[in-house]
Amino acid sequence: MDIGLVNFGTTLIDPHTGQTVSQRERFREVVDGAVLAEELGYDWYALGEHHFGEHDLISSPPVVLAAIAQRTSKIALATGTTLVANRDPVLVAEDYATVDLLSDGRLQIISGGSFFPEPYVVFDQDPARKAERKRENLELLMRLFSEESVTWQGEFRSPLTEVLVQPRLMQETPPVWVSGGSAPDSAELAVDLGLPMVFGTIARAPEDHVPTFRRYRDLWAERGRPPEAARTGAASHVFVAETSQEAKSLWRDYFANYFSRGKLPPGAPRRNVDFDEAIGPHGPAICGSPAEVVDKLGTLHELWGQDLHLMAIDIGGIPYAKVSRAMELVASDVIPQVANLGSDRKAAARA
Amino acid sequence: MDIGLVNFGTTLIDPHTGQTVSQRERFREVVDGAVLAEELGYDWYALGEHHFGEHDLISSPPVVLAAIAQRTSKIALATGTTLVANRDPVLVAEDYATVDLLSDGRLQIISGGSFFPEPYVVFDQDPARKAERKRENLELLMRLFSEESVTWQGEFRSPLTEVLVQPRLMQETPPVWVSGGSAPDSAELAVDLGLPMVFGTIARAPEDHVPTFRRYRDLWAERGRPPEAARTGAASHVFVAETSQEAKSLWRDYFANYFSRGKLPPGAPRRNVDFDEAIGPHGPAICGSPAEVVDKLGTLHELWGQDLHLMAIDIGGIPYAKVSRAMELVASDVIPQVANLGSDRKAAARA
Repeated sequence: MDIGLVNFGTTLIDPHTGQTVSQRERFREVVDGAVLAEELGYDWYALGEHHFGEHDLISSPPVVLAAIAQRTSKIALATGTTLVANRDPVLVAEDYATVDLLSDGRLQIISGGSFFPEPYVVFDQDPARKAERKRENLELLMRLFSEESVTWQGEFRSPLTEVLVQPRLMQETPPVWVSGGSAPDSAELAVDLGLPMVFGTIARAPEDHVPTFRRYRDLWAERGRPPEAARTGAASHVFVAETSQEAKSLWRDYFANYFSRGKLPPGAPRRNVDFDEAIGPHGPAICGSPAEVVDKLGTLHELWGQDLHLMAIDIGGIPYAKVSRAMELVASDVIPQVANLGSDRKAAARA
Repeated sequence: MDIGLVNFGTTLIDPHTGQTVSQRERFREVVDGAVLAEELGYDWYALGEHHFGEHDLISSPPVVLAAIAQRTSKIALATGTTLVANRDPVLVAEDYATVDLLSDGRLQIISGGSFFPEPYVVFDQDPARKAERKRENLELLMRLFSEESVTWQGEFRSPLTEVLVQPRLMQETPPVWVSGGSAPDSAELAVDLGLPMVFGTIARAPEDHVPTFRRYRDLWAERGRPPEAARTGAASHVFVAETSQEAKSLWRDYFANYFSRGKLPPGAPRRNVDFDEAIGPHGPAICGSPAEVVDKLGTLHELWGQDLHLMAIDIGGIPYAKVSRAMELVASDVIPQVANLGSDRKAAARA
């Protein structure tokens, strides 16, 4: 199982000091965090895309990923997610192909649509048609990445006639994943396009997502695609310290700070933000000693069989030194224990 | 007078070897060129924005500038131009504020609109309304950069209600210039907004631009703005070698290669691409020994009084070693001779 980090550049007050870092400093932390993640051996560094919010600073992931590309050489430069449903696929193709070239082919895009209403309002889009927008835009994006002369007609942008998007993606196979939740649309889209999926597993009980993973794999198999190619990813809020007690006592206030200041999409099921429940056996978050984190990741992997797990450690308001210490502990004491999860299954599937 | 370089990532066959560098390699040259430009003491490094063409690779200047930001610390990171007329100002504000933060406030935007028809076709825009699009979009961009809650209504995008664009520009004064040609619209726009201007001086006889510079300054003075604040920029194709003969013999084939393969906007006055005329006293290009380049820049400065001169040296198809050698010669033997041009006038105006 590959392990990555995901970061939205969330900028919150530190509940212990009352201080908030500047936007300049926050971007420095995001870029430095990527450099450290590569040194420590993480597989992915993913940036989320949020717009028009008080706290989340990353609205242009490809701009930040291009900066990170110059300070790293191996780690995958990812998004989690790119708002493909809300952006013009032509501009998405241009921006991300540029990142792929600037990073020697290290780009990974997780394509989604905004959970928050603001982008639909500002970009004059109907939120009720999110799934259709995501499908049309992603289908077009895949063609723009793969074909040098695209003639196309659709519903959500003006037609294209023999358009050559420049520059060209460096990777031969477009490095695109589909983000998905409990609704079936995204799994159908991913299977139609033969793409891997990342599921939004950060807000509900782990058991709730089992049918979601299963539906994707079943649909994939029904279409006769090779089962081992149905790659999946998941994500959690994660915090770790030397001991269980220390991790919990350090994280409790930051966690509460994050959930009291972060905003939820209207109509979304209110997340259970009771700390002890959230980090308990049926909660979505992971917090504890390295051994406890290994255990919970193992349990999640038994449930889901994911190939990639993205950890949100740097959620805002936590001093960078504490974030980087947690990153180091995960790298030294967790990644070696979970890196081989699933490799037997994959080897068997290939045999 | 500040000296900068401008680069479109143009990728052409080398007429002497028949080879074309890969897109990956071309982006590496663009980024390495910026690092070298900073080491050599250039003031600006500007990237042009072109879309859907066979040869020009930079469609997303902010993505490439963010990469350059991580490899440099002093040089201004500029565009020349950003197609403000053809892009959504909301996304422009997000992308470029991110670059400003990632570069510690080194951003400079020259705002223009596409000379080529493809962006109007692909983005479903009426090219006849380019000037109106540029005005509306630039006025909105300035507000999005300066105000934290923007309520706005216009013609070319949907209305905005109390929109906070994130992240926020680092520089207090938005570092925005207006690009202009012989039509009066852009000068009026720049004076209305109190912005400096860069004139497109690369295609016609230097004398032709004198009334254009004068009109901007006259309009500026008519409005009672302080004359010394009417900053202007210009641009030329430039090549230099140790001797006049060497410069001409080196550049002649590359220049012909560039003009035979580059494309002009339909309806544009056909440029005079006779090499000797182009580099002669009434031609727009500059080619020769360092002393000749100093002379011609001095003549242009007498005509125009520009505060900034952007040089297009790396025009495509020229091996990087020859480009960097020309950059070095300009830095060692030209910049010291022209850096003080205009400083007396400015000091007098301030006195």
